Amino acid sequence: VRGLYVVTDDTLAPGRSHVEITRAALEGGAKVIQLRDKRRDAGDLLPIARAMAELCRAHDALLIVNDRVDLAVAAGADGVHLGQTDLPIHETRLLLGPNRLIGISVENAEQVAAAEAAGADYLGVGAIYGSVSKNDAGDAVGCEQLTRFRAISDLPIVAIGGISLERVPEVRRAGADSVAVIGAVVNAPDMTEAARALADAMRSV
Amino acid sequence: VRGLYVVTDDTLAPGRSHVEITRAALEGGAKVIQLRDKRRDAGDLLPIARAMAELCRAHDALLIVNDRVDLAVAAGADGVHLGQTDLPIHETRLLLGPNRLIGISVENAEQVAAAEAAGADYLGVGAIYGSVSKNDAGDAVGCEQLTRFRAISDLPIVAIGGISLERVPEVRRAGADSVAVIGAVVNAPDMTEAARALADAMRSV
Repeated sequence: VRGLYVVTDDTLAPGRSHVEITRAALEGGAKVIQLRDKRRDAGDLLPIARAMAELCRAHDALLIVNDRVDLAVAAGADGVHLGQTDLPIHETRLLLGPNRLIGISVENAEQVAAAEAAGADYLGVGAIYGSVSKNDAGDAVGCEQLTRFRAISDLPIVAIGGISLERVPEVRRAGADSVAVIGAVVNAPDMTEAARALADAMRSV
Repeated sequence: VRGLYVVTDDTLAPGRSHVEITRAALEGGAKVIQLRDKRRDAGDLLPIARAMAELCRAHDALLIVNDRVDLAVAAGADGVHLGQTDLPIHETRLLLGPNRLIGISVENAEQVAAAEAAGADYLGVGAIYGSVSKNDAGDAVGCEQLTRFRAISDLPIVAIGGISLERVPEVRRAGADSVAVIGAVVNAPDMTEAARALADAMRSV
């Protein structure tokens, strides 16, 4: 898990669909797409997730599904992203098998250690700068948190939360392998251009 | 799937937990328990579902999980209940394996035929009398719907929606193998007694 990671949350992008956001982000160079939808039923999300998985394959990118392990498997996604109150990693691994990815949001050193021990494939760390997109993302933790977790774990780290183009260099230098954005892409006037600028910034650090 | 089927929805029973409702319903003679919780995250529901599964095993009853196939597998439940906008039966079967049960809510003859063809284990039919418990249950369909579906399918039929003790005989005579209740148990002053009276009424028809 590296490069630009775009979370598609269509509640934050009125009039833009998950598939539309995915296509634009991939054309701009995103390497990971996360489907995040707490509103729709799984049966309504399945065709959306399948269309996203196909686009990701065509662009040599990964599709991650937020929370719903069953949906991830049914759609042929590359993995899931878990919060601390979602299914535990152990149970998720039994459902996903050994080859799909499990990412997990971590907030402290104990959670980092637990994620490593349970076999997580990457860590989500945030909200780095505070987030306007995720109401449940908690307070801003700053780049210090990235540096702390980088020192205690070899897992890839995905930084999320209020990361704008200007802030990519300091987030990368603090230890993030990947930068995840929602609003910076889904609310941009031109989503493809916004993704391209972020992906370029990622590569140049 | 036969006998009394109790859906635990703790938003409808202030102060009563899923586990508490389950224990009382089983002691009253319920043969199927469905965990229905659209509010909590799957990780918070997992220990609840496991406790419910253990109680069900001890009472020779079945635990069905609403919607979340991943949670059902992780908790060792006996099956899932799907709505028409949840994951399709085919994808659910791949996740659940051949031995666990899949129930599905059906509203018309096409959905009955599709459920049979896809390998559903039982049909949920309702709301028979209109429901005060489920906001999304649609209009009352009456016992006529039970009789119609009974004529075109050999699958067990679970009737749901506003079924009180007095109405159990006519629901059974119309073709229901099982009667599902929420409010009639979870809002009863004595949940065990309410379940016992319903279970007795089921058996006597």
